[in-house]
Amino acid sequence: MGKTTQPRRADAERNIATILATATRLLCADPGASVAEIAKAAGVGRVTLYGHFPSRESLVDAVLEHAVDHAELALSGLDLEGLPAPEALERLVVSSWEILDRHSRLFVAADRALPAERIRERHSGPLARVERLIVRGRDEGSFRTDLPLSWLVSTFLVVLHNAAGEIEAGRLPREEAAEVLTRTLRSVLVSG
Amino acid sequence: MGKTTQPRRADAERNIATILATATRLLCADPGASVAEIAKAAGVGRVTLYGHFPSRESLVDAVLEHAVDHAELALSGLDLEGLPAPEALERLVVSSWEILDRHSRLFVAADRALPAERIRERHSGPLARVERLIVRGRDEGSFRTDLPLSWLVSTFLVVLHNAAGEIEAGRLPREEAAEVLTRTLRSVLVSG
Repeated sequence: MGKTTQPRRADAERNIATILATATRLLCADPGASVAEIAKAAGVGRVTLYGHFPSRESLVDAVLEHAVDHAELALSGLDLEGLPAPEALERLVVSSWEILDRHSRLFVAADRALPAERIRERHSGPLARVERLIVRGRDEGSFRTDLPLSWLVSTFLVVLHNAAGEIEAGRLPREEAAEVLTRTLRSVLVSG
Repeated sequence: MGKTTQPRRADAERNIATILATATRLLCADPGASVAEIAKAAGVGRVTLYGHFPSRESLVDAVLEHAVDHAELALSGLDLEGLPAPEALERLVVSSWEILDRHSRLFVAADRALPAERIRERHSGPLARVERLIVRGRDEGSFRTDLPLSWLVSTFLVVLHNAAGEIEAGRLPREEAAEVLTRTLRSVLVSG
């Protein structure tokens, strides 16, 4: 609430950036990493950390937002428009998985710390891309039309995240995930 | 750790049963119901409730276990063996959904309060039934074999639970859920 001088704001921004980068690294190694561990590794006091992120939930939420922003940037570079929708789907699934896979434990942490609806909201950018592809696939006649659009979009998200959970639980070999996801989502989205 | 007399044990069991029944009712109305609200509605003190369930998480976990036990009892009455696997799948999906639908907000509460892996463990009974059906469908030649069994089982669970979340979020009309789930899971499990 007091006056913020330029250097203090710069300090705060640097602290926030350091905390987010450190939290991302620690949560990717251990989805159960505590706020105390993250503060220590980031070299900031717990009071400073709590000043920016008042709860572990708010910290995990900010890390997730940050990770999805990066994912969005990577996915925006994909050329999907030049491909028929079923091939574009395959490319989108594989690329989405590559990004998610690098942060899979982060999403395990997010699943534990955040309501499902918040996770969904944080993915609104990537999910809008999925939705546009489904709409185009339907227009081209190659994607199914017997299920609601919003249902297909949410199924894309939960199936993708389930792969991260199944790998974490040791039930799905990491190297099989991209192929398993492509086959599963093709069955759900593409006409029979 | 002290000696437990017969009447005190009976009191404790009655309290636990009342707390579980009340928590089920309240969480089905509002997935965010607090421990204080549940204790008040159950007519027990918070100290008594915390004596049995030391955290909200442990209470939600016990309510989930109780609900899945009931589901298991209902599902065990289904005659799936006499039907070809694809029809048995349809019956299992519709029945599983009917049971989940009655408790859908409870599962929203569980998703928020418990790790995904705990929720999965609590469903081991119903999931074993799904697994047996998939194995039989494969033996009969009607179910796909190009995806790992454990992946198909976990997909069944996350897709079913996603329907509860989508209804809660107002994106899926309740009356469409059974049909949407049947079509989706048929696409994932049955050979093209």
